[in-house]
Amino acid sequence: MSTVKRSFFLILFFSILSLTSFAAKSKIERLEPGFWWVGMENPNLQLLIYGHGIGDYKVSLNYPGVDVKAVRNVENNNYLFVDLLIDKSAKAGMFEIKLTNSKGKELVYLYELKERRKDSANRSGFNSSDVIYLLMPDRFANGNSENDSVDVLVEKVDRANFDGRHGGDIEGIINQLDYLQDLGITALWSTPLLEDNEERGSYHTYAISDYYNIDARYGGNEAYLELSKECKKRGIKLIKDMVFNHCASAHWWMNDLPQEDWVHQHDNYMNSNHRKSTLLDPHASSVDKIQFSDGWFDKSMPDLNQQNELLMTYLIQNSIWWVEYADLDGIRMDTHPYNDPQGMSKWGKALLTEYPHLNIVGETWYKNAADIAYWQKDALNSDTYNSYLPCVMDFQLFFAMEKAFLEPQEWENGLVRLYKSLAADYLYKDLNNILIFSENHDTQRIMSTLEGDLDKFKLMNTFLMTTRGIPQIYAGIEILMEGKKSDGDGKMRIDFPGGWEGDERNAFAAEGRTAKENEAFNFLRKLLQWRKVNPVIHLGKLTHYIPENDVYVYFRSNKEKTVMVVINNGSKDQELSLNRFSESIKEFTKAYDILSEQNIQFSDGKLEVKGNSSMILELK
Amino acid sequence: MSTVKRSFFLILFFSILSLTSFAAKSKIERLEPGFWWVGMENPNLQLLIYGHGIGDYKVSLNYPGVDVKAVRNVENNNYLFVDLLIDKSAKAGMFEIKLTNSKGKELVYLYELKERRKDSANRSGFNSSDVIYLLMPDRFANGNSENDSVDVLVEKVDRANFDGRHGGDIEGIINQLDYLQDLGITALWSTPLLEDNEERGSYHTYAISDYYNIDARYGGNEAYLELSKECKKRGIKLIKDMVFNHCASAHWWMNDLPQEDWVHQHDNYMNSNHRKSTLLDPHASSVDKIQFSDGWFDKSMPDLNQQNELLMTYLIQNSIWWVEYADLDGIRMDTHPYNDPQGMSKWGKALLTEYPHLNIVGETWYKNAADIAYWQKDALNSDTYNSYLPCVMDFQLFFAMEKAFLEPQEWENGLVRLYKSLAADYLYKDLNNILIFSENHDTQRIMSTLEGDLDKFKLMNTFLMTTRGIPQIYAGIEILMEGKKSDGDGKMRIDFPGGWEGDERNAFAAEGRTAKENEAFNFLRKLLQWRKVNPVIHLGKLTHYIPENDVYVYFRSNKEKTVMVVINNGSKDQELSLNRFSESIKEFTKAYDILSEQNIQFSDGKLEVKGNSSMILELK
Repeated sequence: MSTVKRSFFLILFFSILSLTSFAAKSKIERLEPGFWWVGMENPNLQLLIYGHGIGDYKVSLNYPGVDVKAVRNVENNNYLFVDLLIDKSAKAGMFEIKLTNSKGKELVYLYELKERRKDSANRSGFNSSDVIYLLMPDRFANGNSENDSVDVLVEKVDRANFDGRHGGDIEGIINQLDYLQDLGITALWSTPLLEDNEERGSYHTYAISDYYNIDARYGGNEAYLELSKECKKRGIKLIKDMVFNHCASAHWWMNDLPQEDWVHQHDNYMNSNHRKSTLLDPHASSVDKIQFSDGWFDKSMPDLNQQNELLMTYLIQNSIWWVEYADLDGIRMDTHPYNDPQGMSKWGKALLTEYPHLNIVGETWYKNAADIAYWQKDALNSDTYNSYLPCVMDFQLFFAMEKAFLEPQEWENGLVRLYKSLAADYLYKDLNNILIFSENHDTQRIMSTLEGDLDKFKLMNTFLMTTRGIPQIYAGIEILMEGKKSDGDGKMRIDFPGGWEGDERNAFAAEGRTAKENEAFNFLRKLLQWRKVNPVIHLGKLTHYIPENDVYVYFRSNKEKTVMVVINNGSKDQELSLNRFSESIKEFTKAYDILSEQNIQFSDGKLEVKGNSSMILELK
Repeated sequence: MSTVKRSFFLILFFSILSLTSFAAKSKIERLEPGFWWVGMENPNLQLLIYGHGIGDYKVSLNYPGVDVKAVRNVENNNYLFVDLLIDKSAKAGMFEIKLTNSKGKELVYLYELKERRKDSANRSGFNSSDVIYLLMPDRFANGNSENDSVDVLVEKVDRANFDGRHGGDIEGIINQLDYLQDLGITALWSTPLLEDNEERGSYHTYAISDYYNIDARYGGNEAYLELSKECKKRGIKLIKDMVFNHCASAHWWMNDLPQEDWVHQHDNYMNSNHRKSTLLDPHASSVDKIQFSDGWFDKSMPDLNQQNELLMTYLIQNSIWWVEYADLDGIRMDTHPYNDPQGMSKWGKALLTEYPHLNIVGETWYKNAADIAYWQKDALNSDTYNSYLPCVMDFQLFFAMEKAFLEPQEWENGLVRLYKSLAADYLYKDLNNILIFSENHDTQRIMSTLEGDLDKFKLMNTFLMTTRGIPQIYAGIEILMEGKKSDGDGKMRIDFPGGWEGDERNAFAAEGRTAKENEAFNFLRKLLQWRKVNPVIHLGKLTHYIPENDVYVYFRSNKEKTVMVVINNGSKDQELSLNRFSESIKEFTKAYDILSEQNIQFSDGKLEVKGNSSMILELK
């Protein structure tokens, strides 16, 4: 028996002991979701009620338009699952949910049905008009040092430890929203903020111990609502990172599971084999498929069983609750294919039923476009699977970007990698709803890969901000932040300088940045501010040309505007013959380069492009 | 103006000159197809008639059930295109096609409509029950040294020249059919045998100068019919290699094209950019797409314009003519995507209309399964394109095989390459109709890549002969023939030892082979003879397991039989725990290894597999 398995049983043993000792103290320890809304598309609501011996109680309520449709007992008598039916006629308000046992004991929960925000269902999600800023909250900025450690959560702050908690929080993020607005980003994706009560490594917060509460060390639910409001004020969309494949071993229900199959349990500890291909592979053996899907992501992360209908409903409602509660603009689903695909399909469909224009991006970490495209909503899959996941992550392009700027052009190398990656776009159902990125919190920092080269930074960002899709950048790219995967994740994910009181310097302000960092920051700001107001980049047709002599040329065009992008990845200056691009240049005779801020005449049919430089030409 | 362009115009100039001098000599120089059959599904037949001033003639005939539907003049008055309608009632027989001009001059062609072979339309093509032997006829065996050079064709034999003609011919192939039958192959694909009258490099024969005549140096049409008959006798299917993207600059019509757009002509010579991705890429510029499709494959290979309806009909009829004439079992289409995709779709559909069970494989040289799968008949393509090409070539698996056996297992290396390549099979419409190969005439010889390692030869062939698809091997693999791509194609494509009288040794016979070669030959023969009679390998379900410790295990199973394949690519012996494979092993308790010819008991739940060895276990 593995250590983990043994400790799991020890915990179970002690909890049985503790439940026995407090047998008399029946009370509603948890009722989730704690409140809900009237006027939802789906009239059904499933309540999870947890408390010792709660299974012995009858449930009743008396509120116009709300009925108890069913009460379900499960194998663990400490749970009740109550299905409410909330009629369209139901008004916002409060009512008592009464639980009564055969001995006449009564437990009461005051339940609230809230009014929804105006047009809540019609919220528009993030889309290709946005640039997303990804950050890890523990490593970004510490706005309130008083919550760095809290009594009820085990891991305490330890900034000297790369793998420890550094104290970053939501208040820190709020403090930098003006900075982010100035940089030009329009959407914010923070890695998870929900409670992660693991003893170690909780800074990454992907081991969630409570799906309804933001970690107190980040500031709790109130701080998150504040973040949402402050983002809205600045036109910044908020994307919540959700993790449904696994919870934390410290999750409250792990001590007293509702059902044995609530999580995937194995006789011996079984790690996922991480072969995501098994899901698609018609030849995959069942044993490999099961190990992929039902094996644990990590020993501290019990694998949730989304085939359990009660659990899946719990998770779906949790997502809807957060969208409604925190006024979200989007969701990012962690390790998307590791979840049960049918469960994820239900989940996506349920969310899109409530919010038809919400956007959801899944972490589709596959090397090939075909495998990624499989996961996009309405994909033309031979097995007819529909994920109902509107947005996928373009890891194929990520892998291309990692190498493209470091190589001279060959048949398949250099900028041809970008060209070829996009050539696979025929596989996607929706080309505009693809997340593109050159790094995220799990990958080596791109500026380490590019060895700090400012020219390459510019070429790479020129590409990222002008090709198709929804660009996502990662906190610190604007100051050329580096970090090597080989140093380990904790060390790679360094703190943003100036996020902590007493930091040597404050890179959130120009005067705290080096000249090189300011050049990078200003370049990116110019690009983002320009991109924001140029719909031609958001939805304009992309036409690209086979790279030649290390130069990649493409156009974005719509009825109003045509933009020509030129990226010279070679060290030599090049003279392009514009005749080759005549189908895209059409009648235009001059251009304005938004990067150099120069006007250019096309009179001689040539275009000079300096070595290691790019141009973004608005054609006139 | 390029040299080629200049010489093209010179040829044109001289032909105009010659036509002028012989203006009086009107005659039918060519009428194609020269004969046809009654009882075809398509009642239409287009005749191309070529002769000086032939456009001035009227066409008539008098034969029950046959009508002249239309006569089409084209811009070159030396051509007439005559559409015949052949009614179902038409009987086999001969009739005169009369051409009469306004001066009363009459030209007559005696046309024959032949009886079809019994069940010609129902012929079954090659399929996954077959193993295909690919050979290059000039380099295989010289059965008749008298035809090594012929007066009417410019390039003469020169065996000392790697890039010259060596004298191999159809008679040579026929002489070795017993050898091939003994080896166990069931289908023969010879690279093109049609006339190639180029001055240099005609040995490869991909520059065709006459679509209706087998090259006299190979023995002409009669020899090809003989080959077909002799193959049939031995249960060997015959596959014809067809080349429609381009013809030879020495093709007869290049001197006097029917229409300017018969071939793609450009102001300046334009080579194809070879970017096959442009066809699928939604962002590709038109100029790049045009250069891919309409640029020439080579300066000596004018690019045929399959969008020209008259030409496309000519090509379609040519294919049907060859199937019917030479009793073919299949077609291999060269450089498939370089042709006009719509033209190829028409072509495939026309062939399958006449022969619903014929097989056609296209050279789909793409690195990714998605791109290859796009070209398979009935693929689920977002652009709704249907190639009507039943069989595609699995170049993704080829590239995997090139490396898999040379590497220790890592996350994506070693045998995982094979596993991962097959994991993409969800993309294919028909998994059993995929050509698989470890080498062909265009690639480096696999035994050079494997550095002559006999163990790796065995592992590789174990895999090739037991995984899904239609295996194709290349002449000489059975004697471990090597050849390096870096030495140039001509040198890489060496003669089969013993194919020529006076050769130092005759590797077609056991006594002419080294001990190592005999070990390879015998291993492959055993495998092929076994595969031939084991339908479980042809169509049985494939179930594979993630490779572990350099060992790849998979099963083929149908109602009658289960076969377990074990490939140990590492140097260490391994002990497999059979429990992992229980879903495939089921109730079986023992096995017979067809390679070692040993019986094996599964009693202790373990299986020993020696380093660098494979097993093919028939479960009992």
